[in-house]
Amino acid sequence: MAYLDNIHSPADLKKLTISQMKEVASEIRKAVLNRDSLVGGHVGPNLGIVETTLALHVVFDSPTDKIVWDVSHQSYPHKILTGRANGFLTPEGMQHISGYTNPDESDHDFFKVGHTSTSVSLACGLAKARDLKGQTHDVIAVIGDGSLSGGEALEGLSNAAVLGSGIIVIVNDNEMSIAENHGGIYTNLRLLRETNGEAACNMFKAFGFDYHYVADGHDLEAMIRTLQAVKGTQKPVVIHVHTQKGKGYAPAETHREAWHWRVPFHLTDGTPKEQMSGENYNDITYAYLSDKIKKDKTVVAVNAGTPGVFGLDADRRVALGAHFVDVGIAEEHAVAFSSALAKGGCKPIFFVMSSFVQRTYDQLLHDLAINRNPAVIVVAWGGISGADVTHLCTFDIPLISNIPNIVYLAPTTVEEYVAMLDWAVDQKEHPVVIRMPRSVIHEKTAVEKDYSSLNTYRVMQSGTQVALIAAGSFFELGRQVAGELEKQGVIPTLINPRYLTGVDEVLLTALKEKHQVIATLEDGVVAGGFGEKITRFYGADPMKVLNFGAKKEFTDRVAVETLYQRYHLTPELIAADILTALHSK
Amino acid sequence: MAYLDNIHSPADLKKLTISQMKEVASEIRKAVLNRDSLVGGHVGPNLGIVETTLALHVVFDSPTDKIVWDVSHQSYPHKILTGRANGFLTPEGMQHISGYTNPDESDHDFFKVGHTSTSVSLACGLAKARDLKGQTHDVIAVIGDGSLSGGEALEGLSNAAVLGSGIIVIVNDNEMSIAENHGGIYTNLRLLRETNGEAACNMFKAFGFDYHYVADGHDLEAMIRTLQAVKGTQKPVVIHVHTQKGKGYAPAETHREAWHWRVPFHLTDGTPKEQMSGENYNDITYAYLSDKIKKDKTVVAVNAGTPGVFGLDADRRVALGAHFVDVGIAEEHAVAFSSALAKGGCKPIFFVMSSFVQRTYDQLLHDLAINRNPAVIVVAWGGISGADVTHLCTFDIPLISNIPNIVYLAPTTVEEYVAMLDWAVDQKEHPVVIRMPRSVIHEKTAVEKDYSSLNTYRVMQSGTQVALIAAGSFFELGRQVAGELEKQGVIPTLINPRYLTGVDEVLLTALKEKHQVIATLEDGVVAGGFGEKITRFYGADPMKVLNFGAKKEFTDRVAVETLYQRYHLTPELIAADILTALHSK
Repeated sequence: MAYLDNIHSPADLKKLTISQMKEVASEIRKAVLNRDSLVGGHVGPNLGIVETTLALHVVFDSPTDKIVWDVSHQSYPHKILTGRANGFLTPEGMQHISGYTNPDESDHDFFKVGHTSTSVSLACGLAKARDLKGQTHDVIAVIGDGSLSGGEALEGLSNAAVLGSGIIVIVNDNEMSIAENHGGIYTNLRLLRETNGEAACNMFKAFGFDYHYVADGHDLEAMIRTLQAVKGTQKPVVIHVHTQKGKGYAPAETHREAWHWRVPFHLTDGTPKEQMSGENYNDITYAYLSDKIKKDKTVVAVNAGTPGVFGLDADRRVALGAHFVDVGIAEEHAVAFSSALAKGGCKPIFFVMSSFVQRTYDQLLHDLAINRNPAVIVVAWGGISGADVTHLCTFDIPLISNIPNIVYLAPTTVEEYVAMLDWAVDQKEHPVVIRMPRSVIHEKTAVEKDYSSLNTYRVMQSGTQVALIAAGSFFELGRQVAGELEKQGVIPTLINPRYLTGVDEVLLTALKEKHQVIATLEDGVVAGGFGEKITRFYGADPMKVLNFGAKKEFTDRVAVETLYQRYHLTPELIAADILTALHSK
Repeated sequence: MAYLDNIHSPADLKKLTISQMKEVASEIRKAVLNRDSLVGGHVGPNLGIVETTLALHVVFDSPTDKIVWDVSHQSYPHKILTGRANGFLTPEGMQHISGYTNPDESDHDFFKVGHTSTSVSLACGLAKARDLKGQTHDVIAVIGDGSLSGGEALEGLSNAAVLGSGIIVIVNDNEMSIAENHGGIYTNLRLLRETNGEAACNMFKAFGFDYHYVADGHDLEAMIRTLQAVKGTQKPVVIHVHTQKGKGYAPAETHREAWHWRVPFHLTDGTPKEQMSGENYNDITYAYLSDKIKKDKTVVAVNAGTPGVFGLDADRRVALGAHFVDVGIAEEHAVAFSSALAKGGCKPIFFVMSSFVQRTYDQLLHDLAINRNPAVIVVAWGGISGADVTHLCTFDIPLISNIPNIVYLAPTTVEEYVAMLDWAVDQKEHPVVIRMPRSVIHEKTAVEKDYSSLNTYRVMQSGTQVALIAAGSFFELGRQVAGELEKQGVIPTLINPRYLTGVDEVLLTALKEKHQVIATLEDGVVAGGFGEKITRFYGADPMKVLNFGAKKEFTDRVAVETLYQRYHLTPELIAADILTALHSK
């Protein structure tokens, strides 16, 4: 890349002419597409923010001036311009540079960020720190329109507006969230776009911000002019920039939702390099949903801005009609809304990723569990993975299972998942959370329909000496451990606990008779999780209990295989640990 | 009460003339003050909402039309008019009727609510349920201006505005939160008040609401007229009502913050019936803070709308100046803001109640812990109490202690608290949370200054057979248990663990030599908490481990003594359980 090869920091960019910078813009788009086509990643948001990023680094003096990127979905051009172009050009660089801002990578990044709606609050903190230390640099938050709907962003905006000193909020308005936007906020953004920013009814001005509108965020000169005008401001300022998601790559311009994030693809036409195929839980869930809604008009699916995670594409959303509500990125609202839907006699199912259900602890506890409304929540992707540190899905069991009144179910097979879902939807007694399994496995025996007898575990195989209590996605692992133990002459009892929120005291008591070791297996952090409750039950008892699962730690793009070795989560390692315990005094 | 004695439901109210209703208003105020003066409670918000409540029950048909009261601080007049006047008139009634909305008390209540900012989301759910079921009643959320700043409220407003059918949001604007308001939202509310609701720049209209302004919310006829005009609306409507906090009681009108919530007082002049006196953690904390800020200009106290909980009254706030930031009711923002203050080289201390830190799980994990910024959080009121179900403070240990990278400290004495606070503020390695102790106890021995050697427990007394690991507020209980055991001839080891987020493996291993029973004591729910980690450590070991603390359950105004009996948390009951375990096979 003629220009990028020579841009090692924003200082190198500042030396160029405007027309050279436009060449840089073109190279950045190529670099973004190069990375995304090879390893997958965020496409549309990054292609849309190129000129804004160039203007920011031309006008401001990063890292003295501090730019905070919301959610990081649009941080690639910034990374490219701050010494990390290699992460977008070479396969080796791609391994080292993540898709999210990360202070460990560069002084130009201030936070590890992968959840939405945090940038304004974080920028407020940096700005207040600047003021207390008597410094004078600029602090800039860059937030997409989709992220604006999250409560934290709104709290941040309200506080930024009364900071009493300078802060700049760039609202990158590409007219969509991951999917389309939902919420009154977007009513106002549309009005502002349609009036070239001149409508008197302006939420940002209402809060007290100075407000500037840039109709074409791809007009580099206009962007630079606007930013120069606010540089060094002593006031809270919003710059509302209208951009095009996917700008410069036809497939991404046309299919904006599909190209928000993309698996590796052929650059020529955008087709994926590997086609996903076969049975999956999204199709299974949708089939259940659409059938159930035909029979029961009170069933309603709720989602908070990530319908794609659940395969709820535009066609399916249309088909579900009034029985699907996307509340935008607003997980807290989604839980309260679902609780009230249930109170109002409907049957809501809120679909949410494990990493994002973290945003709803108080809503789960206060708005839902205390009120014991029979809303259903389906948590996806729960389990140990090689994900970015900001997207780990290992905390949902400690998060949810220690809240009273909630029933957290861990199905192990397709049939059990559907049966649990159907029971949960129709029952009237409990808030129920279901942890969507990760592997598509079919039940060989008949599956129970009624889960109202809480905390009754299911014995799948009876044995002696060792009992394996293997929850949800780790039930198959439990079965493999049983196989390993059998090779060593130990026929263990194998149990599917089904309920993550309680202990089967009758069964656990009965196990004492013929067992000396209990091993619990769960696909998440052990600290505060399911297994510890089993261990506590046997606390004053001679029973030896081993808890298998993830360590309480943040991991960042560490391969699952490595983590399984580290945590002793292979069948062989688990069996060995069990046998050691069995044979020790 | 001439009128209240005959109002058993809103139907009885509807029969009265306007001038009779004004008498009812007067009686309601007397009833509110009667209860508050006898048992304490929310004063200002309830006195200010009287006419609004009367108008709501005159115009709408509760419970067919559904009124959702935000946070319940202003629900007393509603309770009085819906068959629960007794809860405000007689001591026995006051025992049965809580200060919060509660569906178990009345069909006119739809949710148990005690946290702010949830009403609009909950009303959205009821409205959507109505629409799916083909019903036509009105759904009304009543939210105070102070609650508007919470992210969940803003998410709710944004979604309510695009509901596509009728919903009414009453914004009760008394120009303050619990203390003064903070945030850009209030800039707009002020503009709207000053323009009699006619300013073009209107955040509610920006979102898409129809908007009505009532300049005098104590004008019953005006309120009734306005509500009648929107009754049966097919659109989202905001009614912005200007009221006076504390209306009708001079002390509450004059000292609005102090009279938001009040301990029992003399009706004649408002003086408290019992003066709080003696040493307390708020004074100790303030003394530390003001001294520290004198020495270090980067120290900054952060609070989210509850300065009174920490004794940070107006005088103290003024004295702290730029080193105190109240972000309004916006706990998520407060954590992100604090994280960024630390990143920016400052030393933030966020003061928050245990029940409200629940709102920040994802901010603790994603915005703070992943980034390992050395912000400090002080959690108050953590522990088992006789509180309303919405204000339990027993979940913070499971909530916080299972998040990686956070150090959660449990001081046991004044000196240890101050030392931990000072260490936490000055260190640069960890996000640190400190659980403010509940009893003012002074350290008899020298206290450590440096807590950087994580998870090193402190042995306070060496013994044999039994080791008591008694955390934070329950350390004193541990000492009392030791006394009980000594009466039975067992001299136990007594340990102050200090760290709730990790296990002292060296010490726990050493304990194996001379001890057969370990008992952990923590002032919170055991499920997912501190003790389970100790139990897990000994899982495959013959050591008997007993975990003492609260059961995973919601309790509602149950006396602490009752709970201590239920959970076996008296010195005698704990000692008996330990001796049983010690002497069992």
